[in-house]
Amino acid sequence: MRRYSSVPFSDVAITGAFWSERLEVVLTRTIPSQHKQLEKFNMLRSLKLPKPVPPTTIPPQATGFTTEIFWDSDIGKWVEAAAYALSHRRDAGVEGQIESIVDDLEKAQAPDGYLNCWYLEREPENRWTNLRDNHELYNAGHLLEGAVAYLRATGRDRMLRVMERYIDHIATVFGRGPGQKRGYCGHQEIELALVKAFHATGQRKYLDLATYFIDERGAQPHYFDLEAQARGEAPGKFHQGTHEYSQSHLPVRQQTKVVGHAVRAMYMYSAMADLAAEHGDDSLKRACEVLWQDVTRTRMYVTGGFGPSARNEGFTQDYDLPNDTAYAETCASVAMVFWAARMLNLDLDGQYADLLELALYNNALAGLSKDGETYFYDNKLDSDGSHRRWEWHPCPCCTMNVARLVASVGGYVFGLAGDEVALHLYGGASARLAVAGTAVQITETSAYPWDGAIRVTVDPETPAEFTLSLRIPSWCHDATLAINGTPTAVQTERGYARLRRQWQAGDVVTLTLPMAAERLYAHPDVKADVGRVALRRGPLVYCLEALDQPAPLHRIRLPRGAALTSRFRADLLGGVAVVEGVGRATADQGFAETLYRTEPPTESDAPLTAVPYYIWCNRGPNPMQVWLRE
Amino acid sequence: MRRYSSVPFSDVAITGAFWSERLEVVLTRTIPSQHKQLEKFNMLRSLKLPKPVPPTTIPPQATGFTTEIFWDSDIGKWVEAAAYALSHRRDAGVEGQIESIVDDLEKAQAPDGYLNCWYLEREPENRWTNLRDNHELYNAGHLLEGAVAYLRATGRDRMLRVMERYIDHIATVFGRGPGQKRGYCGHQEIELALVKAFHATGQRKYLDLATYFIDERGAQPHYFDLEAQARGEAPGKFHQGTHEYSQSHLPVRQQTKVVGHAVRAMYMYSAMADLAAEHGDDSLKRACEVLWQDVTRTRMYVTGGFGPSARNEGFTQDYDLPNDTAYAETCASVAMVFWAARMLNLDLDGQYADLLELALYNNALAGLSKDGETYFYDNKLDSDGSHRRWEWHPCPCCTMNVARLVASVGGYVFGLAGDEVALHLYGGASARLAVAGTAVQITETSAYPWDGAIRVTVDPETPAEFTLSLRIPSWCHDATLAINGTPTAVQTERGYARLRRQWQAGDVVTLTLPMAAERLYAHPDVKADVGRVALRRGPLVYCLEALDQPAPLHRIRLPRGAALTSRFRADLLGGVAVVEGVGRATADQGFAETLYRTEPPTESDAPLTAVPYYIWCNRGPNPMQVWLRE
Repeated sequence: MRRYSSVPFSDVAITGAFWSERLEVVLTRTIPSQHKQLEKFNMLRSLKLPKPVPPTTIPPQATGFTTEIFWDSDIGKWVEAAAYALSHRRDAGVEGQIESIVDDLEKAQAPDGYLNCWYLEREPENRWTNLRDNHELYNAGHLLEGAVAYLRATGRDRMLRVMERYIDHIATVFGRGPGQKRGYCGHQEIELALVKAFHATGQRKYLDLATYFIDERGAQPHYFDLEAQARGEAPGKFHQGTHEYSQSHLPVRQQTKVVGHAVRAMYMYSAMADLAAEHGDDSLKRACEVLWQDVTRTRMYVTGGFGPSARNEGFTQDYDLPNDTAYAETCASVAMVFWAARMLNLDLDGQYADLLELALYNNALAGLSKDGETYFYDNKLDSDGSHRRWEWHPCPCCTMNVARLVASVGGYVFGLAGDEVALHLYGGASARLAVAGTAVQITETSAYPWDGAIRVTVDPETPAEFTLSLRIPSWCHDATLAINGTPTAVQTERGYARLRRQWQAGDVVTLTLPMAAERLYAHPDVKADVGRVALRRGPLVYCLEALDQPAPLHRIRLPRGAALTSRFRADLLGGVAVVEGVGRATADQGFAETLYRTEPPTESDAPLTAVPYYIWCNRGPNPMQVWLRE
Repeated sequence: MRRYSSVPFSDVAITGAFWSERLEVVLTRTIPSQHKQLEKFNMLRSLKLPKPVPPTTIPPQATGFTTEIFWDSDIGKWVEAAAYALSHRRDAGVEGQIESIVDDLEKAQAPDGYLNCWYLEREPENRWTNLRDNHELYNAGHLLEGAVAYLRATGRDRMLRVMERYIDHIATVFGRGPGQKRGYCGHQEIELALVKAFHATGQRKYLDLATYFIDERGAQPHYFDLEAQARGEAPGKFHQGTHEYSQSHLPVRQQTKVVGHAVRAMYMYSAMADLAAEHGDDSLKRACEVLWQDVTRTRMYVTGGFGPSARNEGFTQDYDLPNDTAYAETCASVAMVFWAARMLNLDLDGQYADLLELALYNNALAGLSKDGETYFYDNKLDSDGSHRRWEWHPCPCCTMNVARLVASVGGYVFGLAGDEVALHLYGGASARLAVAGTAVQITETSAYPWDGAIRVTVDPETPAEFTLSLRIPSWCHDATLAINGTPTAVQTERGYARLRRQWQAGDVVTLTLPMAAERLYAHPDVKADVGRVALRRGPLVYCLEALDQPAPLHRIRLPRGAALTSRFRADLLGGVAVVEGVGRATADQGFAETLYRTEPPTESDAPLTAVPYYIWCNRGPNPMQVWLRE
């Protein structure tokens, strides 16, 4: 099987209007405002050791912990997002902010390399005693990702050196050697971070540690049980009560159902795909494929959201996808983008790119407001108007996750494998790539996702034979292609039109992906969606916001026969394509004196306007529905 | 305005199959099994003072109290239900059980008459310090109702004498005189009990005390606030945080919206109607009418359930009537029957009898299992199969409430006013009544609620002119009447056909109430019901239980055009009329590999069988829906 590699976002120029706007907002508003929030909520101060230990800012929850214990990770994630911003545009102010964080980390680090600010300050004696709940390795993972990103953006390696000392320490503590703990983190993350560190440094020891963590997970006797006993606790007596919560109920290769906390799951699957690629490990790849099939067939929202339940921030039963209580955490969709990109590199199959695009453009992007400074943690598909964006959160994981995703979105555009370039996403991007022994400038121009007219220019320095693989999204049923103006039949191979020829400077491929507004129907065991219809146009899922409709949302339905049209509205929300159709609104005529009657209520025509789901709740809170009654 | 009085159940013979069966079950199974439960859960032992004080059996809730504080009321309610049983059929065993309770109460009673077993034993110093939360007067009310019922059933007055001493004490503590507390109970109930005591004894002081409690309620400065301050607590800082919870936010005559805890509300409205009748107080009657209009137009379930929310066991906002989380406490519907009966006596208007019948036959009756030994506290209208009947409850209020309702159901059949007899309910009942100066035997025979062919024989001892008012239910659109075989036009006056004539022995009125199965539609602002339809036949609301259907419940819909038929199924659930129709079931064909698709799912015909709502969940837990997709 041919393996692909992603072209790093730093080598890809984003030129299209859609992502340029989101990127600019993240660079100019999100990253700086997040630093302000980290300051405001004392999160940055938490790194400054030693200091008089302050009382916790965020009170412990009923479950016994405070989210302050994860603050290192939030800072690590901000450093990563800010470093991505620096890759786009150096900024001395932001670099100074990161340097100050590195100063604090350097000072806080214990002589043996250990570096968890919560434990160092408050419970130094309790290091590594509760991997199940307390996220020490998760924190390390995010700091490591930040360090790698900062190195790549600026060449500054001081943060990475700090983290290398820490990881070296971790590698002495965990493993199968004598005196080592056979542990792994309750919240997976460090595994994929270690693979990144391996890529950045070439140091095999990082890959080995990641491999150990993944392979050891779920082994019996269960590490978390032994650890609980060592703390004097009954093993089964914890917050979630099941190791499915952390996907450690079984060795990873034996897992066939997506279960538990959705973000942990997606981070773990990402690392499994990473290791499948690094080791050519088909047992890991096969496990990923089985889990992929499970999640896509039974456990995902139409918006590319994952994990319906707030109780475990995760998965429940097959087809359990309620709309009004949907959790569908922003982070889970961001992490799905990570996983999907890795699957796509293992195997160029449009199903991975389709879901990458779905999660990216819909559930993940919904997490960030238009102004870039407010957020959704959970992404409901039906709101009575009470669901609101917030400025900060006791657990602000999603804020920096969506920032780092947008800031690095160019990294999901191209895949490369020897003499093949694959274009996964459209919307205006350009890169100079080494293909088939020559440098090739590939430039994709389009008004995607609003329009499906795509122009790809291929400029090899010297003419060369290679394959240009253009993704034909599964939502598109009637794509057309032309090379230098000559129509070419669209032959797709697992979702990609693979154009192999001798490419010359100035070659132009035009790909047309018609974007009709369409209805989507759910599997009838998704109880919340039976008798309902969702709207999609191109990669975007749509919703009705109450303020665009002539009648209260709950009174509206969209009959099956109603025609759907779409048009670009430059005046709306900074410019979006809306989907329009004439629905029916139930009237309350005759109900003034009775709640119930035998005569059916009357209906009248109601012109409906649907907006993209990702941009809802940017005009104040108001009721919203994705699934409309038919 | 003509006032009516109910004919006591003890003067009415229940002869029809439907209520005879329920009554027999309550007499032979419910009452004895409840006594066993009272013993098993240490509730009877709680009366045996003094004793070593045991730890609480039911742990205090997060809100700080334990439901054990209400146990006196549960025992009082059991005595009442058991006394009703004795009215039907004396039973030395049951009388012995009540006598033993009276022994305990007599021994427990303080020298000054005070009699609350919780406070006497555990916090004697804290008597009357928290009327808002701790139900002392509520407990007294239920014990008083029990004492009155026991006197009426057996002539034994020892329990009533105990309670009279207690009430005399209460009357010294509460009132507007010097040194008295201007308090009233957070959980209304004693008010209507005092009116019953007045009727039983003729003692005006009971009526005066009830009147004081109702008139004082909601006065400013607010008694509960003063009382909280006296306890050293901030007035606003309590469980529910608002005096709407106990309907004491305003003086009762100023209340226009049904709010707060539904059972408290209904008991209070019942007492208000009682006092309106006793005092000819039109301001109270008018307040009742305004509240009646509010609840029936905006805040009731189609099943005659009240109070959608578990949070306050009560009312929320207009049209907020979710089905899957419906609270609709059994007690609230029992109490609605009490209120409706009183309104009907104030004013012979079919709207009161219609709702009395609806609440009685549907939400209230659903609270008791077919075998008479398990219960529903909350009555959902949509269950995924997890809603189950239970044998006992930390707060077993509903168990005895439904028992006392069924045991006294004959009391809701007849209304009497001088030369008029009104027949409110059908189903087989007979009574000898004093009308227009003569004794009249009225015998109603029918297979109601299964069949609407009703035969009323009127046998005056001597021929006499009087009015026989037969209720024509609002659900019936085409009633026909005949007197001694001669058809008579049905002329209704506010829901009653008032037949005035010289009645002779052997006169027979035949009333035919055709019972077609019908669809009901809800006000379109009831979000949970839009696009859905409920089924009704006669007084019964129907539901689909999953086990009767050919496809999973959530996949089923009942198109508007589908014909509905009904038939009596002797083989089902002891004999019920079912409603049948051919619905449509959504198929999952083609969804094996995808959760969402553009092609609508296919449907196929699905023969549906609906059963009466009151009898659901008597064949094991299984999914159920009242509101079906159309």
